[in-house]
Amino acid sequence: MSSKLTVGVLGATGYSGLELTRLLLRHPLVDKPVLLRRAESQNPHPPQKTGKGGAPEESSGNGHVNLADIFPALSGNGKYPLDPLSWPLLKQRGVQLLFLATPHEVSRALVPEAVAQGIRVVDLSGAWRLKQAQHRAIYGFKDEDAVGAAKLTEKAVYGLPELNSDQIPSATIVANPGCYATTVILALAPLLKAGLVDREKGIIADSKSGVSGAGKEPSSRTHFVSVADNLSAYGVFTHRHLGEIAEQLHIGTEEITFTPHLLPIPRGILSTIYVHLKQPMQAGQIESCYRDFYKDRRFVRVFANPKLPEIQFSLNTNYCDLGFCLAPDGQRLVIVSCEDNLIKGAAGQAVQNMNLMYGFPEEEGLL
Amino acid sequence: MSSKLTVGVLGATGYSGLELTRLLLRHPLVDKPVLLRRAESQNPHPPQKTGKGGAPEESSGNGHVNLADIFPALSGNGKYPLDPLSWPLLKQRGVQLLFLATPHEVSRALVPEAVAQGIRVVDLSGAWRLKQAQHRAIYGFKDEDAVGAAKLTEKAVYGLPELNSDQIPSATIVANPGCYATTVILALAPLLKAGLVDREKGIIADSKSGVSGAGKEPSSRTHFVSVADNLSAYGVFTHRHLGEIAEQLHIGTEEITFTPHLLPIPRGILSTIYVHLKQPMQAGQIESCYRDFYKDRRFVRVFANPKLPEIQFSLNTNYCDLGFCLAPDGQRLVIVSCEDNLIKGAAGQAVQNMNLMYGFPEEEGLL
Amino acid sequence: MSSKLTVGVLGATGYSGLELTRLLLRHPLVDKPVLLRRAESQNPHPPQKTGKGGAPEESSGNGHVNLADIFPALSGNGKYPLDPLSWPLLKQRGVQLLFLATPHEVSRALVPEAVAQGIRVVDLSGAWRLKQAQHRAIYGFKDEDAVGAAKLTEKAVYGLPELNSDQIPSATIVANPGCYATTVILALAPLLKAGLVDREKGIIADSKSGVSGAGKEPSSRTHFVSVADNLSAYGVFTHRHLGEIAEQLHIGTEEITFTPHLLPIPRGILSTIYVHLKQPMQAGQIESCYRDFYKDRRFVRVFANPKLPEIQFSLNTNYCDLGFCLAPDGQRLVIVSCEDNLIKGAAGQAVQNMNLMYGFPEEEGLL
Amino acid sequence: MSSKLTVGVLGATGYSGLELTRLLLRHPLVDKPVLLRRAESQNPHPPQKTGKGGAPEESSGNGHVNLADIFPALSGNGKYPLDPLSWPLLKQRGVQLLFLATPHEVSRALVPEAVAQGIRVVDLSGAWRLKQAQHRAIYGFKDEDAVGAAKLTEKAVYGLPELNSDQIPSATIVANPGCYATTVILALAPLLKAGLVDREKGIIADSKSGVSGAGKEPSSRTHFVSVADNLSAYGVFTHRHLGEIAEQLHIGTEEITFTPHLLPIPRGILSTIYVHLKQPMQAGQIESCYRDFYKDRRFVRVFANPKLPEIQFSLNTNYCDLGFCLAPDGQRLVIVSCEDNLIKGAAGQAVQNMNLMYGFPEEEGLL
Repeated sequence: MSSKLTVGVLGATGYSGLELTRLLLRHPLVDKPVLLRRAESQNPHPPQKTGKGGAPEESSGNGHVNLADIFPALSGNGKYPLDPLSWPLLKQRGVQLLFLATPHEVSRALVPEAVAQGIRVVDLSGAWRLKQAQHRAIYGFKDEDAVGAAKLTEKAVYGLPELNSDQIPSATIVANPGCYATTVILALAPLLKAGLVDREKGIIADSKSGVSGAGKEPSSRTHFVSVADNLSAYGVFTHRHLGEIAEQLHIGTEEITFTPHLLPIPRGILSTIYVHLKQPMQAGQIESCYRDFYKDRRFVRVFANPKLPEIQFSLNTNYCDLGFCLAPDGQRLVIVSCEDNLIKGAAGQAVQNMNLMYGFPEEEGLL
Repeated sequence: MSSKLTVGVLGATGYSGLELTRLLLRHPLVDKPVLLRRAESQNPHPPQKTGKGGAPEESSGNGHVNLADIFPALSGNGKYPLDPLSWPLLKQRGVQLLFLATPHEVSRALVPEAVAQGIRVVDLSGAWRLKQAQHRAIYGFKDEDAVGAAKLTEKAVYGLPELNSDQIPSATIVANPGCYATTVILALAPLLKAGLVDREKGIIADSKSGVSGAGKEPSSRTHFVSVADNLSAYGVFTHRHLGEIAEQLHIGTEEITFTPHLLPIPRGILSTIYVHLKQPMQAGQIESCYRDFYKDRRFVRVFANPKLPEIQFSLNTNYCDLGFCLAPDGQRLVIVSCEDNLIKGAAGQAVQNMNLMYGFPEEEGLL
Repeated sequence: MSSKLTVGVLGATGYSGLELTRLLLRHPLVDKPVLLRRAESQNPHPPQKTGKGGAPEESSGNGHVNLADIFPALSGNGKYPLDPLSWPLLKQRGVQLLFLATPHEVSRALVPEAVAQGIRVVDLSGAWRLKQAQHRAIYGFKDEDAVGAAKLTEKAVYGLPELNSDQIPSATIVANPGCYATTVILALAPLLKAGLVDREKGIIADSKSGVSGAGKEPSSRTHFVSVADNLSAYGVFTHRHLGEIAEQLHIGTEEITFTPHLLPIPRGILSTIYVHLKQPMQAGQIESCYRDFYKDRRFVRVFANPKLPEIQFSLNTNYCDLGFCLAPDGQRLVIVSCEDNLIKGAAGQAVQNMNLMYGFPEEEGLL
Repeated sequence: MSSKLTVGVLGATGYSGLELTRLLLRHPLVDKPVLLRRAESQNPHPPQKTGKGGAPEESSGNGHVNLADIFPALSGNGKYPLDPLSWPLLKQRGVQLLFLATPHEVSRALVPEAVAQGIRVVDLSGAWRLKQAQHRAIYGFKDEDAVGAAKLTEKAVYGLPELNSDQIPSATIVANPGCYATTVILALAPLLKAGLVDREKGIIADSKSGVSGAGKEPSSRTHFVSVADNLSAYGVFTHRHLGEIAEQLHIGTEEITFTPHLLPIPRGILSTIYVHLKQPMQAGQIESCYRDFYKDRRFVRVFANPKLPEIQFSLNTNYCDLGFCLAPDGQRLVIVSCEDNLIKGAAGQAVQNMNLMYGFPEEEGLL
């Protein structure tokens, strides 16, 4: 038996799950991950419009499934069989930590069992991110009142290491943050914490994401001809990430307006965020606020004012990049926040959480 | 009753059908087209992998369907109701010519009825393009032996105006050419007709198409993330257009190798075509061969050697652009052929055919 | 002599100038335009970072220049010679209206002469858009204090037909609006005019533009590899269009925060605009406000709430599309405004202005 | 002094040079590379149309240059100063191996000095790839007859490890192959070596490359608006890589027709290659031919027939992927060959060569 950590991945056929698998394969402190696919009985209802974590289940039957058949980019470095998920299998393979890159309904159904089996979980869906019932409502969980879920919801830790690194190490369930939410929360937390923001005037987060954020399921919305040479806004005032943004920033959902847009690029997010400051400030003060807040955080890069990050800078990295411009009046502040939605916005952050949970260096396998 | 031509369009919700509708709406000699959708009974079997002509049928029920709801780009210029296709309706509306932008099975089923009703047809699918049974086999028509279909197949004219303008004016059924086929046939016909090509050495057509050529049906193949930042070959030695290329050029399918590729662009085709000449020639002789062949043809632009067309040059036009390079040895010839697959490769050519069928100027509505 | 209008175009080799030329060529009430290029002496200083109107001057010498050589897409429909601009030539050709698709310094230098020659002007640059000196400062005009320019600046009409259709018909100089500015002004004018906006809380315009907006001059910023798979913000608090937005909306530049972004698409703009309303309203009231304001305006399409426009819908049209979402609290409003930056944002609007200047139907040549 | 290898990189500001720097930074057996920029005197003449290796020289003067300022994606992991190249500096820093990612004229001028200094070289330009003077002519080297260069040309080893792994370990100068050439040679070498190809009928290589292959220098050809939504062929019968393809395959340039195309993607190459076989074969025989040839080669992936590689599969890897389709007649063969042009086509292959030169495992730092 290896002294390395043994992990399982359910949902490796989706975009986030694949990225996660790639990261884990080259992580020096983790064994080759046990790749899992759902058995039929684990599909609470056929996924239709799945989110990012929700890969369409690939050809199953009893036949063997090899991840490299689905993603030929993986081939050449060995075999990647997908085994049907079963708790005895996980026990037999010694899985200590299970990553779920599955639709939220599936995560909601599986996590209580995993916990009961003594397996820790990093869940990439929205199933366990929200403490407040009114925010959770949008997910329409059927088990909302079940005692188990309610208890676990309380127990789950929101896995944004830059805010919650004190709770993540001992967490049983880590709810990996939403991709949009990561860019927005990291851009705003230092300013709100420092009490600099005039919240009466409202906060705007205008976010733009690449198409992998919409998941792998084909739809008219993700058809190449619909996306290319285009830009569209969607989910205005209704996007699911609004709740987690508000909860983590300790503000009301009516204090922030969040507008996602679909960009004609495969991956990457840029959020342009607008706040009013309570009083006129100097750019240097703002930059210090950010630098102080993130001084021990490896994966936030604060750009020297007035340089602004671009999506390309953070692609294929686990960084969230932050930069800002201050108006001549010293009170209007525009913050630009960028990340790779599949890494810092999903798989990389999941590995970062794993590193914290097991006492590994936070950046292990992520540079 | 107007003195203009009255036409119907079935399949306006697909890419080619929409483009056709746009062209017809601004055609000065045609009335606003009667837009049609299939009634349930006209779906011989649910379309799954539809080709370019095969748009997924949009929301039906008994409710009204407005094309501008499906393509908001159309809105602002009036209403575009889609009526369920019925022969009495066509008679009542006085439809003289019916355009079919439908899957080939649907065209195969509907055309005999249209002809029986005295309605002429321009069919954008592959249903009526092929005379030779071995070429037709790939379509798997169930009615292959039915007397009506066989007769009509003979009667149908391949609607490439640059080759067949003598037969199109009187045709009852015009089989509008395939998009790839148009670029390949127009590039090769002058050389083959003049007997310049050393056919023993084989002809290569390496074609690259934008994604609209794959139809509007969402699939993992047309997902933005699959197409963007990528290029892939497909259908090598098996693509359906091979048969019509061979028939129109009077060569065997073993004399030409045709490889389609999927480009990360919404529309446009570039075909790079390789032939050996029987004997060394001068570039000027080649250019003359092309210019002579197309001297009366409005929609083929022959580029002055050694200029080569690019996809952008022909977008949103009905041109097929041709250019070439001759090797220093004077015997190896590379021809580049470009078009907008939705216009010269589909809807524009259909209008061009209509113009010839009704004695309109060939370029009417197409400049 | 034709009874049609005779116009000249300087700068047809740029993106806007080419689009303008195309529109004019198919305009039924205008003669084939006289295409002009700058003589050396008309280059006040070599253009380096030119804006949209500022095409790099193409190969000149004494040789003949044909626009179709620069844009092969034009070929096949005749010749498009570019003649060096001279006032005697314009007189000889009977040019009544001159379109300038040139850098603003060039427009600033040429317009006084044109006016002196009795030629009316539609200028696509920023040279004549601004009445207030503090807004003009950003352009750094050297002739700012010259009596002629000051007078002409006052005389020039901001050519946004939806706001200024009363002044455009009799204008000698029409300053065609900036592309971004068009989307922002049209989205906000109805609300501000009706006094609905809580201006104390600030207005945000988060705009995203395709690359043709950055002009044709090659630079590291417009290199394909820099733009593709990327998004970047630029010109925050400093973009030139801020001044015209403020002037036309009768607000201060400190009341609106305008952030442009560079999208990985060739053309099109989407602006996402955020306002607070003075008091809670119903979506229907907002929609009525827009519909009333634009009820006689042919080129603004107001989308039925909550439908939102996308860039694709307005491409290759002269429409500015407007849609909006209202927060559950009834006070936070998000407006989405889209256009084709080369048409409604430049060349199409220039033609629209010409139509008004000469009493043509506003939509002539634009549908 | 470290026991690791000490290397220098000249040209890290170009696309290949940056990729190389990234690979070297994470290579476990190499020290942090010494990054170099050209001193003024080392620019033989101002680079205008530079190839892939030819990065425009970044801001110099006497000021410090930091690679992370040019490529912000690098920031967050330390400093990357660029020092002006001088032989004393290289000696002082103990540089044993110098990578040149420079225009070929620069490489031609610098390599003799490097060799004289006892420094081994991996040159990414075309300066040292060609043995035959008639192939070299296209580069127009001014020192063609200089004794030193001629000798060194003979001495230089063409650094395609899959063909020349016997000569690379002891080479003083490794001429890293061209990006296109790598895909074409690897696809054809096994078939030609086995004598299967009917060379009389000619070989076709239809290649398509992403824009990074055209270098970082801005030009109208690499402008986003020129490339997006487009495809163009260029350099037909004249591209520089033709010579090295012919030399390495031991065929004449008249036996192969090579057509490069510019794809609207940042990186990646797909070559579609057409050969006639001397006699009809089975697909299994072809596959065996490839598998046998590459059985010990880590970085060629042979796809199981009839699966074909796509560009995406090889992005961000050092693989060259090969797949093929055989015609029903068993004699016409289409081979598809893909790679990441910046890795296997440039920087990755350079590292692979370094690994062989210093006895490291061939795949070190490349997986």
